[in-house]
Amino acid sequence: MIADLSPADLDAFIARARADFDAFKARGLKLDMTRGKPSPEQLDFSEGMLALPGNRDHTTDAGEDARNYGGLQGILEVRKLFAGPLGVKPENVVVGGNASLAMMHDVIVWALLKGVPGSERPWGKESEIAFICPAPGYDRHFAILEEYGIRMIPVRLTGEGPDMDEVERLVRDPAVKGIWCVPKYSNPTAECYSDETIRRLAKMETGAPDFRLFWDNAYVLHHLTENRREILNIVEECAAAGNPDRAFVFASTSKMTLAGAGLAFFASSDANVKWQMARASKQTIGPDKLNQLRHVRFLKDEAGLVAHMDKHRISLAPKFKAVTDALQARLGDTGAATWIVPEGGYFVSVDLLPGAASRTVALAKEAGLALTPAGATWPYGKDPEDSNLRLAPSFPTLADVKTAAEGIAICMALACAEVEKAKRLEKAA
Amino acid sequence: MIADLSPADLDAFIARARADFDAFKARGLKLDMTRGKPSPEQLDFSEGMLALPGNRDHTTDAGEDARNYGGLQGILEVRKLFAGPLGVKPENVVVGGNASLAMMHDVIVWALLKGVPGSERPWGKESEIAFICPAPGYDRHFAILEEYGIRMIPVRLTGEGPDMDEVERLVRDPAVKGIWCVPKYSNPTAECYSDETIRRLAKMETGAPDFRLFWDNAYVLHHLTENRREILNIVEECAAAGNPDRAFVFASTSKMTLAGAGLAFFASSDANVKWQMARASKQTIGPDKLNQLRHVRFLKDEAGLVAHMDKHRISLAPKFKAVTDALQARLGDTGAATWIVPEGGYFVSVDLLPGAASRTVALAKEAGLALTPAGATWPYGKDPEDSNLRLAPSFPTLADVKTAAEGIAICMALACAEVEKAKRLEKAA
Repeated sequence: MIADLSPADLDAFIARARADFDAFKARGLKLDMTRGKPSPEQLDFSEGMLALPGNRDHTTDAGEDARNYGGLQGILEVRKLFAGPLGVKPENVVVGGNASLAMMHDVIVWALLKGVPGSERPWGKESEIAFICPAPGYDRHFAILEEYGIRMIPVRLTGEGPDMDEVERLVRDPAVKGIWCVPKYSNPTAECYSDETIRRLAKMETGAPDFRLFWDNAYVLHHLTENRREILNIVEECAAAGNPDRAFVFASTSKMTLAGAGLAFFASSDANVKWQMARASKQTIGPDKLNQLRHVRFLKDEAGLVAHMDKHRISLAPKFKAVTDALQARLGDTGAATWIVPEGGYFVSVDLLPGAASRTVALAKEAGLALTPAGATWPYGKDPEDSNLRLAPSFPTLADVKTAAEGIAICMALACAEVEKAKRLEKAA
Repeated sequence: MIADLSPADLDAFIARARADFDAFKARGLKLDMTRGKPSPEQLDFSEGMLALPGNRDHTTDAGEDARNYGGLQGILEVRKLFAGPLGVKPENVVVGGNASLAMMHDVIVWALLKGVPGSERPWGKESEIAFICPAPGYDRHFAILEEYGIRMIPVRLTGEGPDMDEVERLVRDPAVKGIWCVPKYSNPTAECYSDETIRRLAKMETGAPDFRLFWDNAYVLHHLTENRREILNIVEECAAAGNPDRAFVFASTSKMTLAGAGLAFFASSDANVKWQMARASKQTIGPDKLNQLRHVRFLKDEAGLVAHMDKHRISLAPKFKAVTDALQARLGDTGAATWIVPEGGYFVSVDLLPGAASRTVALAKEAGLALTPAGATWPYGKDPEDSNLRLAPSFPTLADVKTAAEGIAICMALACAEVEKAKRLEKAA
């Protein structure tokens, strides 16, 4: 444990870490672990889509011409295929464009300008509104709120979802209109919300009558082990708790098929779906139904979808193992870093000694390793302890991930030891 | 002229029209001329796209992997291809999803919540805002404004754009933030804005410092004759007039390639493009670049695009001729209806005697002909004279269009004669 080292041993630790760092830096590498992008190998799994649906194949099961306008909700065969993973009936699924982020953004915009079912007035007409932001979380979720001046209240994640005592306390305030949740293999901590967390979210008393769970089930099928984790069905839990309209569920195929050319989904109660489609009907005549047909032709059925996701698992799992192995090797007995070994999702989240995150990013940059900026996983980019870092091992090759992970672990060890030494000097002064 | 007929001759006219109507109705047809949808024949022109880009073809000229995330502005080869028709440089084009309506909707939403370049505050923070709506116009434009409570001020179209004296008078009011324009082959009147109209729009003094022309150039290449009409370049005219940020230009390939799976475009000044992309960056990581590549591979270059649009022209022109021939045959010497013979676009707009539009739609329905509701072409669905009808001949087969046009002309003649008779009875009473 770094904290227990004698002054001389700490100096020796720093000297060794500095030597490792200098040696790594001398390799002159350029590696990027910033964003959760699928690798070319993963995209190749869907290469067959590029020639689909193919000539003369443009008619849906219902006989619609998928080339033409219309079909706002999305074609039924796609809604059937994803209804299971989304946990609702096909009639409660809306298929959007290529970005679930856009469906989330647009729902927030419509809430601000129009209100949601149950709103007394548009959210933008309230004197102030706020969202609970479990942290560390997804920077793009937070960016939407910041763009529209919605106050963000960070709440710590516990390993099985947000601190529910704190959430239950906060939602009594009628200004609190929503909470961001990535309930399965959370971005970035990879934790899954426990049954208790989900039940409490479904049934908690909220001050706002139009409070919403923004349930971004981005990693619903994105397992990294053969232990395919399931979580409770939020729409059912909300209905059972007498809050049938509480959950807005989002998902996409961006990390199933093609990151830039997937399908986005919105799933919710009857009232919410009707509301969403009424709003969307002013925005578009309908989504790209050919891309929907392309997905159905390629994936075929839920078994096809599961088999396809297995390819991703087999490609990704060794990269994640390389990261956690490197962390374990360098930091496992230092007490300077903690992480969850991800069973799914796209990230490894590491909590370092307070103050060591930004120092690690600076060291990594010096060594040719691009990391997501420290603080990015917190609302307003402000990590109160400057301790969390998000590693994204999906895009580089396995060999590069191994190299980068080693370098990152070196930077973390050096940063943490430096921080420990500075703390001791400060205490002594 | 119906107005000049003697009472007996008017009764005889009505009797003949009624007999024609009854005979038409007895055919028991079901025909639909409601929406400007491309026909299956037109969609077939782009059938080759359904197998594009094809396996292993997913790399842009810049070397990007079009399958992955990113590329918010759209790939350069698409922006180059459409820069000419849009009248700007490629760096001033943003490629969106499959719907230019969504780009228009989103720009209005962002204006409400954030303001546009030059705004003193978000439009939604103004006490009241209004748009000028040249009428008859596009119902979906008006629906966006109605959705967000933006007051609509109808201004008559003149045959060469809106009544500019009236527009210039209205825009002195700082509450007037924008005007909808379909400057070429306008929806539905098919008129083209004259050079004078465009210059006056570019240089007029507006009370609002952040006034915008919403320039929906939906039919920029959608000619119905070999006389390919050109209009002045609005972005250049605005710049020359010292109002460089005045025009937001929109267009799409929805009626070039595939109606539901085309590309949408936003084109404007440097400041406006920067603003639009800053907003869009909160909404999406990027558009569907594979569909962009698909378009480039299929259309190849601007010559390919023009040749492709010729196919549409050759398919559509006879349908439009069938409509205007039927109108001329039944109504040409009645003085009861006026229309522009379209040289482009997707509609034939007919102005009937005041009060005859809704009666025509009711008669047509009785005869199995679905028409766009009377009033749909006016803000709030309220045609002050109940006189305008929009006919959309693109989707049905030529034979069906001929039949439907005959039936519609019969309904119009009967409705107008009935209206004339009712007016005389009212005057006599």
